[in-house]
Amino acid sequence: MGWHTAIMGATGAVGTEFLRLLEERDFPLASLKLLASHRSAGKKLAFRGEQLVIEELCEQSFEGVELVLASAGGEISKRFAPAAIAAGAVIVDNTSAFRMDENVPLVVPEVNAADIAGHQGIIANPNCSTIVMTVPVWPLHQAHPIRRIVMSTYQAVSGAGARAMAELRAATRAYLDGEPFTPAELPMPSAFNVWSHGSEIGDDGYNTEERKTWRETRKIFHCEDILITATCVRVPVLRAHTESINIEFHEPVDENEAREILAAAPGVKVVDDRERNYFPMPIDASGQDNVLVGRIRRDVSLPDGRGLHLLVAGDQIRKGAALNALQIAERL
Amino acid sequence: MGWHTAIMGATGAVGTEFLRLLEERDFPLASLKLLASHRSAGKKLAFRGEQLVIEELCEQSFEGVELVLASAGGEISKRFAPAAIAAGAVIVDNTSAFRMDENVPLVVPEVNAADIAGHQGIIANPNCSTIVMTVPVWPLHQAHPIRRIVMSTYQAVSGAGARAMAELRAATRAYLDGEPFTPAELPMPSAFNVWSHGSEIGDDGYNTEERKTWRETRKIFHCEDILITATCVRVPVLRAHTESINIEFHEPVDENEAREILAAAPGVKVVDDRERNYFPMPIDASGQDNVLVGRIRRDVSLPDGRGLHLLVAGDQIRKGAALNALQIAERL
Repeated sequence: MGWHTAIMGATGAVGTEFLRLLEERDFPLASLKLLASHRSAGKKLAFRGEQLVIEELCEQSFEGVELVLASAGGEISKRFAPAAIAAGAVIVDNTSAFRMDENVPLVVPEVNAADIAGHQGIIANPNCSTIVMTVPVWPLHQAHPIRRIVMSTYQAVSGAGARAMAELRAATRAYLDGEPFTPAELPMPSAFNVWSHGSEIGDDGYNTEERKTWRETRKIFHCEDILITATCVRVPVLRAHTESINIEFHEPVDENEAREILAAAPGVKVVDDRERNYFPMPIDASGQDNVLVGRIRRDVSLPDGRGLHLLVAGDQIRKGAALNALQIAERL
Repeated sequence: MGWHTAIMGATGAVGTEFLRLLEERDFPLASLKLLASHRSAGKKLAFRGEQLVIEELCEQSFEGVELVLASAGGEISKRFAPAAIAAGAVIVDNTSAFRMDENVPLVVPEVNAADIAGHQGIIANPNCSTIVMTVPVWPLHQAHPIRRIVMSTYQAVSGAGARAMAELRAATRAYLDGEPFTPAELPMPSAFNVWSHGSEIGDDGYNTEERKTWRETRKIFHCEDILITATCVRVPVLRAHTESINIEFHEPVDENEAREILAAAPGVKVVDDRERNYFPMPIDASGQDNVLVGRIRRDVSLPDGRGLHLLVAGDQIRKGAALNALQIAERL
């Protein structure tokens, strides 16, 4: 026995990761339907030794479906959620469409799994950079309330989708060969470059990606007074986001205690070898369920011992998207 | 008329940039001597239409030399400085050997050119990530004293030298071709990766590169009470460092005033186009004299308006090393 499940956006970077994870984790499936745009309909994807045919997403797609794993963009989620709910399905939505809706739980299972129970047909998966940050920060916040976080991100191009990943490879090869290359998926030349996250910038100078870090974290933590600021930057990395996180607590926090808390925390792996200078790296985080945490150290600029630094790396597609959504579904 | 000049470490990434800049800037040279290790002695480098033969560096190299531009590593600088000074030369040293020596001025010309006058034969050039940070931060600090800085860096491999730049290219090509690659110059696999700066880590958990940011900045600014913390990270970029800088002032600072201060500051170019989402990038900073500054915005996590964010990019080899040293020499 299991769930009659549909994947919305089956051909994307997150969609294909859903397929991989459903296999790996022996998720209890009664049936699996792959939904995508007209362009992909009729194509086949391998799953548990079979070839599943992709169907074109439409209002009628959800008959008999109990669980929808959605990752086809916010507009698609908004458009098809009513039909899915009317058909009796629960949607675990990986887009930003419903995250800040007060009737929709926003869930990182390691943090606020209890919120799942209050859902009304939709449960939202947070933004990838928020998930990667909250998994290691939450256990510290539980032990010692946090006053303020200053974060700078080193985000992989996987956050912009599978075609952006292909573009980084192609752009880099062109650069090495001395050939011209015009970006199409990514907003800036990506080869051997670093660029500010391309999401829309508001009057306050923050982009949408940065705004998500404090809006979503406050909702997930049920803590409206935690202060967060972020600078979101893309780096020429294929997959897995790295984040430099500076934390100011309300009271002094011992570095060794913090390391012990993190070592015992779910979803976290401490990688903090000062002697070998070995710390979290995106190539090590790729394909991993855990968020890697290291460079754990007391902040010298807060002499009273209230500050702590972390460097973290987490797989943007896996824990930052597909795995987190599936962990939500597993708890339903 | 001009200076009888020697370049120590003429074949390195910074050494070759010295040659380029001496041509570009019409630096007043009476003669130019290229010094390097035994391995490079006898090879030739082009300069102003001539082929200059590289000589092996030894204690006798400095006879008749008035100015030494040193960039061959700290141990080499320590070993040969006495001979150069004894010969009557002034050394502008690009290594870390003498930076914190109280008898040696540590100079960013846009900040503390007046300190040059107090030299006793050696003037030190700060570390590259410190230079790139201090050039835009100093004019803000002059207008509104800074309390605390939290910085995260996105450092190019050029900081590890010319061979590290070649390794990043080779490692990336191998990755794209699906071939194995063993790093030799860089401490970690560099292709499509991000890794903590490889310098030695102390008991406090900070690496040497990070420690330089506050030790050097306090000396350059003549301000012992400015609080600075940093996380130094390498990214797969060939040249030019990017830095995410969070500044807390003692008093509220208006974002537009900060932008005006930066637009008028020497050595700084404001690149801050929110509509086009166009901000400082290392590929744009490469080969530029100016440090690019953008993402100028008020920090939402300090509600009283005392916080400001900057994203900056500066050429590590040029302003972060060779150009800064040459600007010091020009003021001698």
